[in-house]
Amino acid sequence: MVSKNQIKLIKSLSQKKFRNKHNLFVVEGTKGIEEFLNSDFELYSLFSYENSFEVSSEKWFEIDENSLKKISFLANPHGGLAIFKIPETTEIVFTGLLLALDGVRDPGNLGTIIRLCDWYGIDHLLCSQDTVDCYNPKVVQASMGSLTRVKLRYVDLPQFLKEHNDLPVFGTLLEGENIYSKELPDNGIIVMGNEANGISEEIKALVTRKLNIPQFGKNQETESLNVATATAIVLSEFRRRSLTEK
Amino acid sequence: MVSKNQIKLIKSLSQKKFRNKHNLFVVEGTKGIEEFLNSDFELYSLFSYENSFEVSSEKWFEIDENSLKKISFLANPHGGLAIFKIPETTEIVFTGLLLALDGVRDPGNLGTIIRLCDWYGIDHLLCSQDTVDCYNPKVVQASMGSLTRVKLRYVDLPQFLKEHNDLPVFGTLLEGENIYSKELPDNGIIVMGNEANGISEEIKALVTRKLNIPQFGKNQETESLNVATATAIVLSEFRRRSLTEK
Repeated sequence: MVSKNQIKLIKSLSQKKFRNKHNLFVVEGTKGIEEFLNSDFELYSLFSYENSFEVSSEKWFEIDENSLKKISFLANPHGGLAIFKIPETTEIVFTGLLLALDGVRDPGNLGTIIRLCDWYGIDHLLCSQDTVDCYNPKVVQASMGSLTRVKLRYVDLPQFLKEHNDLPVFGTLLEGENIYSKELPDNGIIVMGNEANGISEEIKALVTRKLNIPQFGKNQETESLNVATATAIVLSEFRRRSLTEK
Repeated sequence: MVSKNQIKLIKSLSQKKFRNKHNLFVVEGTKGIEEFLNSDFELYSLFSYENSFEVSSEKWFEIDENSLKKISFLANPHGGLAIFKIPETTEIVFTGLLLALDGVRDPGNLGTIIRLCDWYGIDHLLCSQDTVDCYNPKVVQASMGSLTRVKLRYVDLPQFLKEHNDLPVFGTLLEGENIYSKELPDNGIIVMGNEANGISEEIKALVTRKLNIPQFGKNQETESLNVATATAIVLSEFRRRSLTEK
């Protein structure tokens, strides 16, 4: 059974202010719930048809299909819905490559980028304060469990880059140099910008190595690449070098 | 003014069967409408606040903000809504690289892949019959005008590959060879698979060159890459070779 108060709590967690107030967020679907249960995240409560996840009985609430539909943020809920505690912010370890996002607003893009970090072994993802919240249900969904493995931290990005000016800061900019032929080290900070406006002027001034992904199509009107696909190309290129140039 | 019949027509165009029946599809937003008007696509009718696009008066219908909200498929409609005619299928020209999609279902993914083709100069995109329809409003939106420049064709993909078995067929598969070190020519067909299941068994048997995008993260549980980001990495890698190895 799901109580009215529980429904109210779950619904409120679609909003950042309530996630922060309660220090809780929602994970949906069998695979996602399993991955969070097997991680350092701490379960608050679980709603599912059966207790197949074998969580302690005081945290488990039996639910039928109709009730799951009522509390779910998905069009086609499946497997259950879990509430986890938002962990304390972890320290950033400065080894290898860090990725930093400057105002990425679309939850799907952030989720995809977290998944890319997981694939390409980027352990730490820095987000500017105006980047979408990583505990937004759509981000959790799109990150496909990678949120349990990649450590995110929201920072004052300009301030952060100024404090760590011993590291090279990479950014893709129109006036940058061809990423395919430029030397790419395996340490530093890679900055990716906002969907509509790219990297902000303030951050641009702090980028020490300007890169460019060459356009091959002949159409001048072509929109720039989506930030998640551009991130894929940039991370692929950095990691390729560490494989083939060592 | 928008008539009841026009509203009914527009709403019906969210469904493939009605798009095919009427041979019409919807484009929204100032930039998108402009790009389609400046392309070979033929306008059927346009609904906007003013006739700033300067289309012939019998195709233009003045509309206010509230009516636009009523007919729009977007959460935040802007600039207007246009209906264009679905063009006849174009012939495929076999020069260079072709991309083929095997059951890509998510409209956002198809739109992003069309945008990638535009960026990387892939003129022809082949889609299996079970790939999402490219005139789906969400695909049109996500492709950001690139649909005016990339030529799509829906084909019986296994049949098509069998008929063109003189060309190398590339596919990313777990058992494939490292894409970063494998020789990549600048002609052939690159196949990308379905979101959940990858390349189907039938198509897998027709892939002549198996490639793999190496995983750098140490987490064995990491989900495979999203199909749009994988496409970005594969196209980037093919094009990089044509730049640096020639």
